[in-house]
Amino acid sequence: MEFEYLTNVSLEKANREYLKALTDNGFGPESERIRVQNACGRMTADAVYAKISAPHYESSAMDGIAIKAGDSFGATETTPVTLSGKQYTVVDTGDLLPEGCDAVIMVEEIVRHDDGTVKIFAPAAPWQHIRQIGEDICAGEMILPAHVKVTPASIGAMIAGGVLEIEVVKKPKVGIIPSGDEIVAPCTDPLPGEIQEFNSSIFSAMVEEWGAEAVVYSIVPDKYGMIKSAVLKAAEECDMVILNAGSSAGREDYSAKVIGEIGEVLYHGVAIKPGKPAILGICGKKPVLGVPGYPVSGIIVIEEILRPLIGYCTEKAGNGGTEVEAVLTRPVISGLKYQEFVRARLGYVGNKLIVTPLNRGAGVVSSFVKADGILEVPQGCEGYRTGDSVKVKLLASEEKLRSTLVVVGSHDPLLDEIGNMMHTNDRSVYMSSMHVGSMGAIMAMRRGEAHAGGCHLLDTETGEYNLSYMRKHFPNRDVKLVRCVGRRQGLILQKGNPMEITCFEDIAGENIRYVNRQKGSGTRILTDYLCKQYKLDVKKIYGYDREEMTHTSVAAQIASGSADAGMGIFSAAQIYGLDFYPICIEEYDILIPDYAWDTPMVKAMLDTMKSDAFRERIMAMGGYTVDNPGELIEY
Amino acid sequence: MEFEYLTNVSLEKANREYLKALTDNGFGPESERIRVQNACGRMTADAVYAKISAPHYESSAMDGIAIKAGDSFGATETTPVTLSGKQYTVVDTGDLLPEGCDAVIMVEEIVRHDDGTVKIFAPAAPWQHIRQIGEDICAGEMILPAHVKVTPASIGAMIAGGVLEIEVVKKPKVGIIPSGDEIVAPCTDPLPGEIQEFNSSIFSAMVEEWGAEAVVYSIVPDKYGMIKSAVLKAAEECDMVILNAGSSAGREDYSAKVIGEIGEVLYHGVAIKPGKPAILGICGKKPVLGVPGYPVSGIIVIEEILRPLIGYCTEKAGNGGTEVEAVLTRPVISGLKYQEFVRARLGYVGNKLIVTPLNRGAGVVSSFVKADGILEVPQGCEGYRTGDSVKVKLLASEEKLRSTLVVVGSHDPLLDEIGNMMHTNDRSVYMSSMHVGSMGAIMAMRRGEAHAGGCHLLDTETGEYNLSYMRKHFPNRDVKLVRCVGRRQGLILQKGNPMEITCFEDIAGENIRYVNRQKGSGTRILTDYLCKQYKLDVKKIYGYDREEMTHTSVAAQIASGSADAGMGIFSAAQIYGLDFYPICIEEYDILIPDYAWDTPMVKAMLDTMKSDAFRERIMAMGGYTVDNPGELIEY
Repeated sequence: MEFEYLTNVSLEKANREYLKALTDNGFGPESERIRVQNACGRMTADAVYAKISAPHYESSAMDGIAIKAGDSFGATETTPVTLSGKQYTVVDTGDLLPEGCDAVIMVEEIVRHDDGTVKIFAPAAPWQHIRQIGEDICAGEMILPAHVKVTPASIGAMIAGGVLEIEVVKKPKVGIIPSGDEIVAPCTDPLPGEIQEFNSSIFSAMVEEWGAEAVVYSIVPDKYGMIKSAVLKAAEECDMVILNAGSSAGREDYSAKVIGEIGEVLYHGVAIKPGKPAILGICGKKPVLGVPGYPVSGIIVIEEILRPLIGYCTEKAGNGGTEVEAVLTRPVISGLKYQEFVRARLGYVGNKLIVTPLNRGAGVVSSFVKADGILEVPQGCEGYRTGDSVKVKLLASEEKLRSTLVVVGSHDPLLDEIGNMMHTNDRSVYMSSMHVGSMGAIMAMRRGEAHAGGCHLLDTETGEYNLSYMRKHFPNRDVKLVRCVGRRQGLILQKGNPMEITCFEDIAGENIRYVNRQKGSGTRILTDYLCKQYKLDVKKIYGYDREEMTHTSVAAQIASGSADAGMGIFSAAQIYGLDFYPICIEEYDILIPDYAWDTPMVKAMLDTMKSDAFRERIMAMGGYTVDNPGELIEY
Repeated sequence: MEFEYLTNVSLEKANREYLKALTDNGFGPESERIRVQNACGRMTADAVYAKISAPHYESSAMDGIAIKAGDSFGATETTPVTLSGKQYTVVDTGDLLPEGCDAVIMVEEIVRHDDGTVKIFAPAAPWQHIRQIGEDICAGEMILPAHVKVTPASIGAMIAGGVLEIEVVKKPKVGIIPSGDEIVAPCTDPLPGEIQEFNSSIFSAMVEEWGAEAVVYSIVPDKYGMIKSAVLKAAEECDMVILNAGSSAGREDYSAKVIGEIGEVLYHGVAIKPGKPAILGICGKKPVLGVPGYPVSGIIVIEEILRPLIGYCTEKAGNGGTEVEAVLTRPVISGLKYQEFVRARLGYVGNKLIVTPLNRGAGVVSSFVKADGILEVPQGCEGYRTGDSVKVKLLASEEKLRSTLVVVGSHDPLLDEIGNMMHTNDRSVYMSSMHVGSMGAIMAMRRGEAHAGGCHLLDTETGEYNLSYMRKHFPNRDVKLVRCVGRRQGLILQKGNPMEITCFEDIAGENIRYVNRQKGSGTRILTDYLCKQYKLDVKKIYGYDREEMTHTSVAAQIASGSADAGMGIFSAAQIYGLDFYPICIEEYDILIPDYAWDTPMVKAMLDTMKSDAFRERIMAMGGYTVDNPGELIEY
């Protein structure tokens, strides 16, 4: 076995050699004996044969009398046979066949006399109307072959066949060790510098979905001896071990040293991104995987390296996830050195499946919540261009994608509320929204990549919102403009306004730290316009280049004390209990292209916007005016 | 609410009215608060909003120095700015941003001097290379909308967002009460007349698959008071109750009386088959369902009546199960009075999906193990003819069906062994076999309904097996004859041969009870031929009309003592430790039509037949000769 340090081995080779080195040491599927009642969903390890027949005794299949068939021979319509009370027994369906009897005659076919005799008018064939032994299952028969999933009905069949315990493929036990001095147990008020330990919760949910059992150990501080004994304990108690390093640089060297000392490090460094610093370690026949601390890196490492090992042990094939072809809406640039996994949003617009890469930050776990698919850029590929058709591994079902409203445009928290209300009213529709600003909405409509988008673009000549932009970009009027809300824009300020900001020009004040929105957003266009109006030199505004993508994140920076002011909507200020200096009420409308107008998702969105519940929710959020939302605006 | 007794209400109406009556009483989805870590796979009941931002503090996004950006203003390549040791702090990626700093300069872009000063050559923009608060999640943002499934990554996002508990849709608790004097707990040696209680195991596995929690109560004897208090207790402790009646006639009247007394019976009798005697009861806002004792009836009642209620409470839509069109291989006759659910086997032969109804006995739980689909015959429909295209609800995946070897023909336990070995070697192939006798194999090939079939047909003129039949039925030679095994046929006799049967003619002896195989089977043809040879009058053979479908079930009857002799193969006698009087060695071959020859499943079967492992297994079963299996036989 070769030992490589800080390698850049391809994922395919790493997986192949890892499995080989492990199986050489005896790694593989194991079986365990469990009660049949607990076996639903488990995989049989051996074929299961019936031990007894079912039914295991003869019983009457009809209501009638049980007799010895021979006693009835010779009976006809004209020469009936009379049986004495001793020659028959009255039986109901399901009754045990009385000793010595071998036929049942239906109650409709006999005549009973008061003296206890019965008359029969046809001979009974031996074993007629009798439920025979083994009609369902014969002893010795194979009930289930090996390597199939146990179903509810097969549990019944096994019990009927006298099988009370079976050998099933064992669930491998995966030990998860979180480590790092900065890591703290989940809480609602972590101190600055403390990182909440949620990786183990993600990892254990993942491995349990794949059919393994997770054991989460306590957080281990960055002390060599403590990490070593934690890994030794986990390797003793479990079949596989995940050592989750802290997220600061060089931490995985520490992990590699520990793993190397108690076992061997096959590879330290795999050519994948995120996930490069993965450590493929072996302790006897057990994999000990060093996983980077960043959640997204960790998820990719576990998905790509641990999952195949769990699959091997649970005998479940493949990585799941169907692959589909989708059209890229943005370029993806990737390094040649790594195979890159890019989380992406997917959506069907018309019949075209479009894919939009999400924030690639390794710490951004929410991108995994929003992702509908994973776009893989192979090692040696520089990436893809807008419009390229690329392969994407699905995380959501096709059915869900086909009923998802794709919203691309200006951000407002009310969009999430619409999505939530829509889906609550009709569980078959979903919303997926991307915040790319008002101009982004227009561009997405022009490229046919969205069903709807929020837009609030001020025409600085006329003071009107949206109309002139619509006329310019959609001369064929093939995109509808739908009234949504009026919303109060202004300066979000620290609570109590300690910097005493009392007019827009104050943002250029000497000690004022500003936080801005990204270019192309309606709010940025408004801000740039106001600066021009008030003749402010934007180069002199401290933090004018500090760009956030949403109203909420602007408010979050101000709430944290790292900025004093930022342009945004009232509802964002209210979430954080911040002060607000109102500047204007703008029209926040929704664009809906004709190609999307008749979809059930757009209908559901419009229904929601017109509902009283929507109005109530919006009014509670504050800073909005609601006047006939859902109405078409001519332009 | 109307009360109807022994009704024949349509399933659709029964379900609709049952749900209405229940919801009128307050039945519906409930929610419960659980720890986020335990929420994977659960459905959110409310939208989840972040309580804190993630990250919740500013940190360095690079290795370098943290400074106050203002201190760097004016720096250029030619006029660098020098910072004193007090003006900067060395930081690694992930480190908390030091108090007062608002920018990070990368280590590559500075020059450090021995006196502790650093030189910088470009101004730093405020907040450059800083991981901002809320980059991942902003406090107040919606992390998950209501009514979506919690995924592993979203667990991480919720913890990161300071959410430790969420409101999820409650799993309804389903209480299951088995009842009946004849019912006993699962065991390996039930006495005659005792029925093993496995319905509760099937039902609990089913409801748990649907997202409910099952509570199985102890078996209650047929005593009115005991049943009543068991139902009262379950209705108190659970959200839904299943009262499983014993299987003998009239038992459900008892259940109806109990349910009617503690609540109301909405319907007693639904127009479905199996499952007619279902009792739709209501106790407050809780459904109390009286379920017939026969397992197959019970499964259908639970699937069709309870599942929609569980789906309503868990907010999961539909009954699952895709519907496909398939071609019937046998007629299905159904009563006009009921909607009938027929378990069926499915298989792709070529590109045609064919469907074959299985044994419709209500007690035959093994038919549910074998079933790949459910064929529904609507109320008012008399049934379907062979060749009709019918709708079938899938129980297996399309993928599995497409890689299933459809074997139709003569029975031999070695077929199950081949299926088991095939699937063990290659988990992507499956076998499904139907026992319809050797002539059935020929007919299935002619109709294009099977990939393979066992055949052992004696030509009584020539003494040869199979050849003349092949020539006659396949004049175009479009079905291949593949050598399988020689097998010893003879009389299976009671252990120790108490009836002293020493030659074939003895089966016609006065006190001998014979058990036969079905017409069309190779063994029956052999038996009829022998009778003719020995000039036996088959009408005089007691039990000659008693037909079993497999060698194993013939042996099972003899083992149980209900027959003295039956023609069959040695391996079947051996399973039960019975005596055996050998008569001949016959050729048991496999037919494979050309249209199936190139399928992976046929290849896998042939590979298995040629393997040493197959030979070993077969020899261990006894009574077989193995000479070049898999070889083509010219005809």
